[in-house]
Amino acid sequence: MCFFFNFISNCITQKPHRVPAPEQPVLCIFGTGDFGRSLGQRLLQSGYRVVYGSRRPHSCGPLPPGTQATSHEAAAQFAKLVFLCIHRENYDFLETLAPQLKGKVLVDVSNNLKKNLYPEANAEYLQRLIPGAHVVKAFNTLSAWALQNGPSDANRQVYLCGNSAEAKQSVAEIAAKLGFTVLDRGSLSAARELEDFPLQLFPEWRLPLRLAVGLTAFFFFYEVIRGIVYTYVDQKKDNSFRIMVSIANKVFPIVSLIMLALCYLPGIIAAFLQLYRGTKYKSGRFPDWLDQWMLCRKQLGLLALAFASLHVLYTLIIPIRYYVRYRISASTISKITENKTSVFDTTSAWRGDSYYSMGILGFGFYILLGISSLPSVSNALSWREFSFIQSKLGYLTLLFCTLHTYLYGWDRFLYPSTYKWYTPTGYMLSLIVPTVVLVLKLLLMLPCLDRTLTRIRRGWEKSSSENAIEKALLT
Amino acid sequence: MCFFFNFISNCITQKPHRVPAPEQPVLCIFGTGDFGRSLGQRLLQSGYRVVYGSRRPHSCGPLPPGTQATSHEAAAQFAKLVFLCIHRENYDFLETLAPQLKGKVLVDVSNNLKKNLYPEANAEYLQRLIPGAHVVKAFNTLSAWALQNGPSDANRQVYLCGNSAEAKQSVAEIAAKLGFTVLDRGSLSAARELEDFPLQLFPEWRLPLRLAVGLTAFFFFYEVIRGIVYTYVDQKKDNSFRIMVSIANKVFPIVSLIMLALCYLPGIIAAFLQLYRGTKYKSGRFPDWLDQWMLCRKQLGLLALAFASLHVLYTLIIPIRYYVRYRISASTISKITENKTSVFDTTSAWRGDSYYSMGILGFGFYILLGISSLPSVSNALSWREFSFIQSKLGYLTLLFCTLHTYLYGWDRFLYPSTYKWYTPTGYMLSLIVPTVVLVLKLLLMLPCLDRTLTRIRRGWEKSSSENAIEKALLT
Amino acid sequence: MCFFFNFISNCITQKPHRVPAPEQPVLCIFGTGDFGRSLGQRLLQSGYRVVYGSRRPHSCGPLPPGTQATSHEAAAQFAKLVFLCIHRENYDFLETLAPQLKGKVLVDVSNNLKKNLYPEANAEYLQRLIPGAHVVKAFNTLSAWALQNGPSDANRQVYLCGNSAEAKQSVAEIAAKLGFTVLDRGSLSAARELEDFPLQLFPEWRLPLRLAVGLTAFFFFYEVIRGIVYTYVDQKKDNSFRIMVSIANKVFPIVSLIMLALCYLPGIIAAFLQLYRGTKYKSGRFPDWLDQWMLCRKQLGLLALAFASLHVLYTLIIPIRYYVRYRISASTISKITENKTSVFDTTSAWRGDSYYSMGILGFGFYILLGISSLPSVSNALSWREFSFIQSKLGYLTLLFCTLHTYLYGWDRFLYPSTYKWYTPTGYMLSLIVPTVVLVLKLLLMLPCLDRTLTRIRRGWEKSSSENAIEKALLT
Repeated sequence: MCFFFNFISNCITQKPHRVPAPEQPVLCIFGTGDFGRSLGQRLLQSGYRVVYGSRRPHSCGPLPPGTQATSHEAAAQFAKLVFLCIHRENYDFLETLAPQLKGKVLVDVSNNLKKNLYPEANAEYLQRLIPGAHVVKAFNTLSAWALQNGPSDANRQVYLCGNSAEAKQSVAEIAAKLGFTVLDRGSLSAARELEDFPLQLFPEWRLPLRLAVGLTAFFFFYEVIRGIVYTYVDQKKDNSFRIMVSIANKVFPIVSLIMLALCYLPGIIAAFLQLYRGTKYKSGRFPDWLDQWMLCRKQLGLLALAFASLHVLYTLIIPIRYYVRYRISASTISKITENKTSVFDTTSAWRGDSYYSMGILGFGFYILLGISSLPSVSNALSWREFSFIQSKLGYLTLLFCTLHTYLYGWDRFLYPSTYKWYTPTGYMLSLIVPTVVLVLKLLLMLPCLDRTLTRIRRGWEKSSSENAIEKALLT
Repeated sequence: MCFFFNFISNCITQKPHRVPAPEQPVLCIFGTGDFGRSLGQRLLQSGYRVVYGSRRPHSCGPLPPGTQATSHEAAAQFAKLVFLCIHRENYDFLETLAPQLKGKVLVDVSNNLKKNLYPEANAEYLQRLIPGAHVVKAFNTLSAWALQNGPSDANRQVYLCGNSAEAKQSVAEIAAKLGFTVLDRGSLSAARELEDFPLQLFPEWRLPLRLAVGLTAFFFFYEVIRGIVYTYVDQKKDNSFRIMVSIANKVFPIVSLIMLALCYLPGIIAAFLQLYRGTKYKSGRFPDWLDQWMLCRKQLGLLALAFASLHVLYTLIIPIRYYVRYRISASTISKITENKTSVFDTTSAWRGDSYYSMGILGFGFYILLGISSLPSVSNALSWREFSFIQSKLGYLTLLFCTLHTYLYGWDRFLYPSTYKWYTPTGYMLSLIVPTVVLVLKLLLMLPCLDRTLTRIRRGWEKSSSENAIEKALLT
Repeated sequence: MCFFFNFISNCITQKPHRVPAPEQPVLCIFGTGDFGRSLGQRLLQSGYRVVYGSRRPHSCGPLPPGTQATSHEAAAQFAKLVFLCIHRENYDFLETLAPQLKGKVLVDVSNNLKKNLYPEANAEYLQRLIPGAHVVKAFNTLSAWALQNGPSDANRQVYLCGNSAEAKQSVAEIAAKLGFTVLDRGSLSAARELEDFPLQLFPEWRLPLRLAVGLTAFFFFYEVIRGIVYTYVDQKKDNSFRIMVSIANKVFPIVSLIMLALCYLPGIIAAFLQLYRGTKYKSGRFPDWLDQWMLCRKQLGLLALAFASLHVLYTLIIPIRYYVRYRISASTISKITENKTSVFDTTSAWRGDSYYSMGILGFGFYILLGISSLPSVSNALSWREFSFIQSKLGYLTLLFCTLHTYLYGWDRFLYPSTYKWYTPTGYMLSLIVPTVVLVLKLLLMLPCLDRTLTRIRRGWEKSSSENAIEKALLT
């Protein structure tokens, strides 16, 4: 499941003999590693002529056909623009090339293995080494693989920064010709930020993941105390095996339901904020914490879906568990030996079947929400379709899952034995947020509130009307 | 699960200081809402200079860095092309700008909240307000989000229409530079059609959804009458709790199987039509209803998959249902009390296990069909690979699911008690279409018919041979 | 689930009246089939003027609005470049057009129905027919559908080959303007290779599929012999019904676990090779078989996931099987009649629940790996994120699944009755490869080995240090 060796194989099977027009400018690449070769091949395909600079031009391994390798000095003199595909640790030899590199554009594509490994950014260090050159930081967020295969959805953007506007323009032109979208991030002082980009590990997942871990830990200990410690203290019975499946299958649905509800809570808070303020623009924007929360709703939802899926699997293996089979067999035996006859209870059948049905339908819609948030699927939807699925179907999912939990509880809240050590059960705690969200959403669906909100969102202002035009912008 | 607030955050974190070449033309944007700002930023990134027109140029909120806001009058005089990112309700103030806008290209990007809200299209209304300007309807199918993030699979196309070919050409050039594919839809009278585009809600899903709802409703009532009403009338027993799971789990697989078969029926009808007519081109095309049907096969198949998934989940929860546990326990107890010994029946074991195996394999292939119709997966397949999966694997899926249903029925059709009130069971009805499809497909696979069909599809004509060349076009 | 008829419907509903600038060159298309019409429409949208050559210009069916059809002779004289959208079988009539086609660029887009149908490639045959023209093979890997909808992820590349560099350049320019990425494959002798491309059927899946079929067949017969033949010989009992579910559900997890481990084995072999050689580049590259193996890891993993999913479904239906219900009921009855009381065994409960829990968590991560290898998802990940999921999570999945299997076995390996006919059980065989992989991976994670490997991968050489710079290329 890895593309690491694509380059080598492509190199062998594709043999591109691109014939560039002679008037195309020559670009120079220092370094003949994977990235350098991929970049060279891509430049070649886009019509540039490419020359490699290498300390050992005759033994630097396979290069893209149509390119040559010479010494660093010769290559540098050849071209106005040099790509540096070398590790930062080897930059020092460049100092000797300072005369040849003077006035040239140096494109620093390097990355580091860790954040804050060096006191200054690679590109700034390079600029200090060769003050006469125009250093531009660019292309470092791309992998050799992305270069090989051409820009695709998420690999379309090339960030660049540098002190010379002209140098940046020339790099931007090359990037555009290679099919990338260019985003200028300002002067070379932004280089550190750009070098940290590829080291990010799911930044937008951090908050939702922490929340998920926190909720799971809390409810796990809560259920262990109520389900295992209590039983042990009360009846001196060792129930600890329940941790693996029974307790897990209580924690997962609880966390899932709370996180699903937390997806929809910020939208409702925002709506009430807007209603209270009377305008969308009055104090400019939502508070930061709300913005932050809104931005991670997709991740919250997908994590909730993962927990729900685990809940489904844990539920479906119930009947093949040793414990369950033992208990069912024991109950059948006890019925016979004690000669009791249990009467079929239609209410129990109705309740149980409704409970399962709500759960399955809720999970079905859940899966639908998950599928529609796959990049290729959400791209294929119109804005109205996407918001229909995520909003209407989302609330329907929440409704089904909440009903599923209420049906699970049924009349259990009436019995004192439920409140072990005076604590409510986990499922009761899990119902708080979704119930609040659903009630508030129902309130917002009242015609009067709904109308006011729509007007506010379209730019209507409570007090002034003279600046109505400015406010009535498309959103 | 919403991208609504992406713009604000991007705006804050990205700070693009793009340095446009000075010779780039100036474009004007009226309106500083989300759409206007996203459009401005994107234009800026593509090298244009942008000026905003605003009634309050000094307090219009955060604009993309590198742009300025002036009065509407000044902005309009500046640029030859003006984007109107204002709601239709506020168009009237433009009348006062008629002199400044004379001869300019006005790009109307507006949409309405509902269809048929106004007697004429927004763009036509705008043209009537400022007859001297060249109004072009464009970009309205894009969201601010699509503009922000650049064109991706489904957001690549920009539709435009207008009365001036020159004005359209200049807008098309901008769209192309922004990375979009332009589709010209003719004169301004097409504006209404374009304005209705973003209001569409799954138009291609409508027919399959209606069919699914219709089939579900029919079989639900059919099964309720046979399973609950009949039992009540016949034995005075209240079975109503069966609605939630038992009846649902009969209806879902029935609907799923019929809809899967309906995916493949039009292809077979088309093949027989071609065989009958002897040529693909004789009377031009297939009848409209067949074209319509063929176009919604993907949606039919995905809905069938959804129903099949529900069937799987409803089946897997069977052993944890109260009703099922009660019955199993009761049957064990009755065996003991009546001292009966049941003998293990190998045929039943074979039949049952084959039945489940067929179902699982059929569902596995079903899932594979579903995955291969995800946009990003089907894009990665060659034409031959895609048609292999959708056709060969599709028929295999249908075969497995049909066998699964036959094994479910087994010899039940022989017993008179099956035909309550002289009606066949639901599963028998569900077998009609798939059986017909599979038999006809087998017929089409006979060498003689297969050869003829291949020849017809490659352009061979029964009667004439002089125009063979024209007919032998690549398909 | 087919896009076959998209063209017709698009043609009817879209009516693009593109107004091309008059200075655009005229291109000629011979053939008015689906491909010819799609190509024409796309060229039109990109600003070219298009003329069709047809033997019956007045009755050749619906053409894209804005194009005309004339005779082949007239059309050929019109344009410098002719697209041939005709089947090879009809090429012979072109000989009569040799004078008009002299010096023109002929683009051969044709494909064959089978490999090796003709002694020479279509494009070479065409060149032989009209020696005066410059034949370029191109666009044949695209479908009419890809042309219609514009380039997307996997349909972005256009391969071309031909003997005239100039002719290739002009075709490459058109392809680039249509939004495609051009890959030049050399002279016309590469045409055969290009014509074979669209006929490929999952070439990268072939090896993994063969492996899966081989493993499945081996373990199936192995389990049939141990589970059914042995029982029949030993106890004269017919267990054959177990083939459908019980045996299948032993074979699937075994094959899945082995194939998952085989995904990670080549990476480990490569690491030890690098450690042994002391440098990544010493002898150039990895041996071919290792490269081959590495390239099909994604497919191995996805097949392993498919087998794991079947295992999950087969496991979940266990409690509804006739055989299982019969056995449970029989065991309950025998307990009562023999008046035995079985004591609840906490160790069994712990073991069983841990076994299921490991399995479910392993399967959850498995699914995650599968989702992250969907093209649109993996495109949205940064390189570090992708390798985190595929490597870290991948080993975690392997660990969970291996533990799941060990817990399944538990102390069974101690009992002589396990070794029927002195053979080990299937699950023991399945544990060999994953255990080896996990132990070796643990070894590689030892700080000393890990450090050395990192240094080697960053270009450090054991012996020489003078050429350290050249080796220290970005990878």
